[in-house]
Amino acid sequence: MKVDHISQVPAQEMDMPGAEKVKIQWLVGERDNPPNFYMRRFEVEAGGCSPKHSHDYEHEVYVLDGEGLVWSENGEKSLGPGSVVLVRPGEEHQFRNTGEGPLCFLCMVPKDAK
Amino acid sequence: MKVDHISQVPAQEMDMPGAEKVKIQWLVGERDNPPNFYMRRFEVEAGGCSPKHSHDYEHEVYVLDGEGLVWSENGEKSLGPGSVVLVRPGEEHQFRNTGEGPLCFLCMVPKDAK
Repeated sequence: MKVDHISQVPAQEMDMPGAEKVKIQWLVGERDNPPNFYMRRFEVEAGGCSPKHSHDYEHEVYVLDGEGLVWSENGEKSLGPGSVVLVRPGEEHQFRNTGEGPLCFLCMVPKDAK
Repeated sequence: MKVDHISQVPAQEMDMPGAEKVKIQWLVGERDNPPNFYMRRFEVEAGGCSPKHSHDYEHEVYVLDGEGLVWSENGEKSLGPGSVVLVRPGEEHQFRNTGEGPLCFLCMVPKDAK
């Protein structure tokens, strides 16, 4: 069993093209060698966004704090604490902070995601 | 893409033997047919606990609110908002609420968990 706390996990700047003011923490990552999937925590500063992109694996997202939206080809939907998003493989998507404070969310991905 | 909110997801009493005052919400569940894993939200009332048990699949847990502990054969560890727990397959474990208010956490499991 591993027990950790977000205050102990280093945050890295997300350097993917299109990412603006996004930090990522790998709460359960490669170093833990979990059987099936990883848990990451994102913090998007006011005015920031994740890249508009798609990939062949899913996201399962839970919004912890802040205000934002998720964009897809079908439109935009508002997000706040307690919002849940399932992005299916192949769906183009983008998360944007629309609030004054940070937008924080968990994003789980399968292990075979890069 | 599915966008939902915890306020829209029904909570069920956890009826597993040993569970006390535990409610579960399937935020991403069988109805969504996700590719790899499910997302559940647990709410444990003051004085409540999950069963002391083990199984052949992992838990990935993120504590949202409240105070509690996780028990394993190696002892107990305190939990609070922002705590992260990886329970590996086969590890006996139990979550207990040690606070005055509800203990709320997310718990992700692979799809082949029952």
